[in-house]
Amino acid sequence: MHTAPSVEAARFQPPSWQAILAAHARIAPRIHRTPVLTSASLNAMTSAQLFFKCENLQKTGSFKIRGASNAILALTEKEVARGIVTQSSGNHGAAVACAAAWRGVPAWIVMPKNAPVVKTKAIEGYGGKIVFCEPTVTARQETCGRVQRETGAHLVHPYDDDRIIAGQATAAKELLEEIGDLDAVFAPVSGGGLLSGTCLGGKGIRADVRVFGCEPERADDAYRSLTSGTLQSLDSSDTIADGLRASLSPRTFAILRRLVDRILLVSEEEIISVARLVWERMKIIVEPSSAVAIAPLLKPGAVASLNLPKRPDGGAPKLGVICSGGNVDLSSLPWK
Amino acid sequence: MHTAPSVEAARFQPPSWQAILAAHARIAPRIHRTPVLTSASLNAMTSAQLFFKCENLQKTGSFKIRGASNAILALTEKEVARGIVTQSSGNHGAAVACAAAWRGVPAWIVMPKNAPVVKTKAIEGYGGKIVFCEPTVTARQETCGRVQRETGAHLVHPYDDDRIIAGQATAAKELLEEIGDLDAVFAPVSGGGLLSGTCLGGKGIRADVRVFGCEPERADDAYRSLTSGTLQSLDSSDTIADGLRASLSPRTFAILRRLVDRILLVSEEEIISVARLVWERMKIIVEPSSAVAIAPLLKPGAVASLNLPKRPDGGAPKLGVICSGGNVDLSSLPWK
Repeated sequence: MHTAPSVEAARFQPPSWQAILAAHARIAPRIHRTPVLTSASLNAMTSAQLFFKCENLQKTGSFKIRGASNAILALTEKEVARGIVTQSSGNHGAAVACAAAWRGVPAWIVMPKNAPVVKTKAIEGYGGKIVFCEPTVTARQETCGRVQRETGAHLVHPYDDDRIIAGQATAAKELLEEIGDLDAVFAPVSGGGLLSGTCLGGKGIRADVRVFGCEPERADDAYRSLTSGTLQSLDSSDTIADGLRASLSPRTFAILRRLVDRILLVSEEEIISVARLVWERMKIIVEPSSAVAIAPLLKPGAVASLNLPKRPDGGAPKLGVICSGGNVDLSSLPWK
Repeated sequence: MHTAPSVEAARFQPPSWQAILAAHARIAPRIHRTPVLTSASLNAMTSAQLFFKCENLQKTGSFKIRGASNAILALTEKEVARGIVTQSSGNHGAAVACAAAWRGVPAWIVMPKNAPVVKTKAIEGYGGKIVFCEPTVTARQETCGRVQRETGAHLVHPYDDDRIIAGQATAAKELLEEIGDLDAVFAPVSGGGLLSGTCLGGKGIRADVRVFGCEPERADDAYRSLTSGTLQSLDSSDTIADGLRASLSPRTFAILRRLVDRILLVSEEEIISVARLVWERMKIIVEPSSAVAIAPLLKPGAVASLNLPKRPDGGAPKLGVICSGGNVDLSSLPWK
């Protein structure tokens, strides 16, 4: 049964600004301050001024190291002593394996057996121990629970965790610190950790910045949850955006209901063609999940249909995009 | 016949520091200040601290816009009135087409008929008019001369031009401004414009920084010229590093003889495997010509064999790399 918003709000207070500042101070010495790139050709195609926060160039190849390192570096010696366990479609797993290595403890990564080889290899490269399971939310949770019981490892959930959300918030915080007058920020949504963090980190710097979540049509639980007002889940998905196959949790749903402006959907074809466009024009490798946050802007008339307030300077809208990750298997490109 | 160094030096005074400062002031409002990226995994593989100046993320996808825009923006209205002509294996052509469009004049680009399709498309995208010729230095020069006579266009040579060299110098200048205590800088060498500029821009900020030119074994004219002391040329080459098929000119040879520390050679296999490594680990698209400047560092024991002075801080050598470009045909990857 759906819980009324006020009750949810009381249950799930989002991480405070203080928690986000503490996260940023904790992780900044360990991670990259990723560049913000622009592209004249993508600006021309979208009739906007786009600013790409390149978390694909982040350590471990995605933003996930922000939340994972915040959570793991904050643990006490006792909490961390028997290692870390998590479930992940890949990028969070690599981030947890990397941050666990920083703490000198083992990491068990539960991941769906259809995860890309490049992501499993990356996890092994950081010393993570992979435990495969069926590609369903249920199987992931069960396997994760079993590993936790067997090893005594500390669970670091990929998104249903305030320390993770506070860590992910630092990407939008850095973006807004650098481009202070953005009209809106776009981020992909899966479990909602990055999107919740983007709302908190972005609006923390500029209260009236709009935040749009972007989601594959084939994994549209956040869209359905936000439009229906009731948390919807997705037991499995085959979207090419392999980082976006999870569903919101009650915690991220509660945050997004209050803070996100809208969810925008994109087709598989749009994801693939925009990923290729970004590789060709911007010379950066973005994974399909990243293209999901760019593709809505390239639909005809998309930027005008956002109904953003006119800018005081009369210029085209200034839009930030969180390029979430760049982990792609180069021997199996999405457009082949 | 080879001219004695002192006579050459008198004929070819390199661009002054004032000329480089003027170039930088002229082009900075038009181009990207490209990011300097690092990679923990490439550091570990090379036992060095590497700093990648990402000109692959530059406007037009390569450093070439620095020299081309400096040369073209500096022309008088009269000089530019009948347009620009140049010869190019691709990246300089795109840069000239782009900078000519900024001046509102036509650009004719003479290029070898075996140039990658992605590069010809890019030139057409900037409004450049392509004139194909045989893939030899002689054919390029003849065709270029013919177009010049027919149109009255102003010739902007890809490297045998002080304004081009001064523009290319701004990449190393920015790199050294950002990472002031580099021990050495690595850049690919073809006609020698970028490498001459790297010597001038790098040593202008830090007089004792070493500069190494990097060249494919299959297009080793700079190596042979510098080791023999006599300008050698290359009438054609089939190296996969399609940006490095030109030869030094007397002007760049004179500059490099005095300023470059050494030329390092790499095989075709090394170029391809290092390009792929950079895509995978750094999530940036570098073309084979860029990989040429990284590949020497990945040979076993390479960094130690450079005999760099010990750092005062006792740390691993700090090495800058000019990642020259990122224009690759995604439907025909070098490792397939």
